[in-house]
Amino acid sequence: MENSTIDLLMKRRSTRSFSEQQVDAETKLRIQEATLRAPTAGNQVFYSIIDVTDQKTKEKLATLCDNQPMIAKAQMVWLFVADVQKWENLYHLAGSVELGKKSGIEERNPGAGDLFLAQDDALIAAQNAVIAAQSFGIGSCYIGDILENHEDIIELFSLPKYATIATLVIFGYPKSTSDLAYPAIRPPVDSVFMENRYEDYTLERLHYTYGKQEERLREKNALPFDNTGNISDYYYFRKHTSDFMKEMNRSSALLYERWMKEETP
Amino acid sequence: MENSTIDLLMKRRSTRSFSEQQVDAETKLRIQEATLRAPTAGNQVFYSIIDVTDQKTKEKLATLCDNQPMIAKAQMVWLFVADVQKWENLYHLAGSVELGKKSGIEERNPGAGDLFLAQDDALIAAQNAVIAAQSFGIGSCYIGDILENHEDIIELFSLPKYATIATLVIFGYPKSTSDLAYPAIRPPVDSVFMENRYEDYTLERLHYTYGKQEERLREKNALPFDNTGNISDYYYFRKHTSDFMKEMNRSSALLYERWMKEETP
Repeated sequence: MENSTIDLLMKRRSTRSFSEQQVDAETKLRIQEATLRAPTAGNQVFYSIIDVTDQKTKEKLATLCDNQPMIAKAQMVWLFVADVQKWENLYHLAGSVELGKKSGIEERNPGAGDLFLAQDDALIAAQNAVIAAQSFGIGSCYIGDILENHEDIIELFSLPKYATIATLVIFGYPKSTSDLAYPAIRPPVDSVFMENRYEDYTLERLHYTYGKQEERLREKNALPFDNTGNISDYYYFRKHTSDFMKEMNRSSALLYERWMKEETP
Repeated sequence: MENSTIDLLMKRRSTRSFSEQQVDAETKLRIQEATLRAPTAGNQVFYSIIDVTDQKTKEKLATLCDNQPMIAKAQMVWLFVADVQKWENLYHLAGSVELGKKSGIEERNPGAGDLFLAQDDALIAAQNAVIAAQSFGIGSCYIGDILENHEDIIELFSLPKYATIATLVIFGYPKSTSDLAYPAIRPPVDSVFMENRYEDYTLERLHYTYGKQEERLREKNALPFDNTGNISDYYYFRKHTSDFMKEMNRSSALLYERWMKEETP
């Protein structure tokens, strides 16, 4: 019941500190090819990937993503773009829209469904990239903070209306492999999986779900109120009510609204 | 420059026709464990997975997802739920909200950023599940149509406000392995990857991007207008202006609006 891929998935953890070792061109190409083999809705490939190689751009990005210098130090910085714009271009440039009109078929703008499908496509591809990289010993980290400062991000990368942020992943050989010995604790399988319908998370279930993570935080003396607080307090005060989450919510609503803004098709 | 994981990623394709062979309990558990090893924002695990085992529910789902009987025939049907609700429950039940109020920290409702982070978490986990399954010879298919009929889906699975649809994946041993010899054509690496900023898709770039796929469709005599149309027409008339995309856009906007609807926190 073992195989090397399962082994790799089980051992994966985020890398936030990178060595100086560069990713060579052939390895990079293999990762790119494996990324593109990810399943994609209708084989339409509703994403583009911006490979950020310019050091100044990396640094701007590091600032815009809640000031995380590790982004500027990563060997590869890939911005996954949910991209329906390319199909909009094709439908118009190849004449399909015009052809449709002649037979009474109404043109339409991309909607929320197109946005979600494209974001899904991009995330699925991103995880293929992460796993492909890991198979070559290259670590990675998702940067959720790419959902902040939307106006600046779209300007920095010249994103047109129907090509928007999905996620950012940074890659590089790990500075040290010692971290890899202690993978992050995850909830038990039967706390996350449910059968046939949604099961409410009672306090009991939540203790079962996050209890081990709370223990680990307590061992590390990381809980709030001099380590007397609980895991709920930890996330409530550090994350949920933080300024960066406020910004992420503002910025993400803007992302959606920009996409959905009605214009004459 | 080869390894068995890269090989597996390169060979992956969707499975839509399943054999009678069941996924045994141990294999299923290994897939579940590997799914949970997926990276997740802040290690918060913003998703839940509903394992649909009830045959009647599978059939309802098959109908609601644009009438695809293969869903009811799959050996495993997993609904990935973007779940911030469990943390909302914890923050309230464990007393963090009350504690915050005492020190003047304002409570807030989940916003668009929380929604996107949770959807991302769920999609990343889904792709881990897909790859883990493949490593045991089990095929899979994403069902984008789960983004349709939102009202019915949330009722069918009793989803609370801040636990919503991310994606649906169906799994099973392939009925035949012959399909696997012809993986779907994907665009060239340098048509999807860009450097440092978004590059507009001109008609020339689009021909380069989707030209091989168009050729394949022409070989299969699958292009519209008696095979004289192009790939743009193929997708414009079959997908972009279809009733199911109209429904997906309506339903997805509703998903977003339901999440964002202001209520007293």
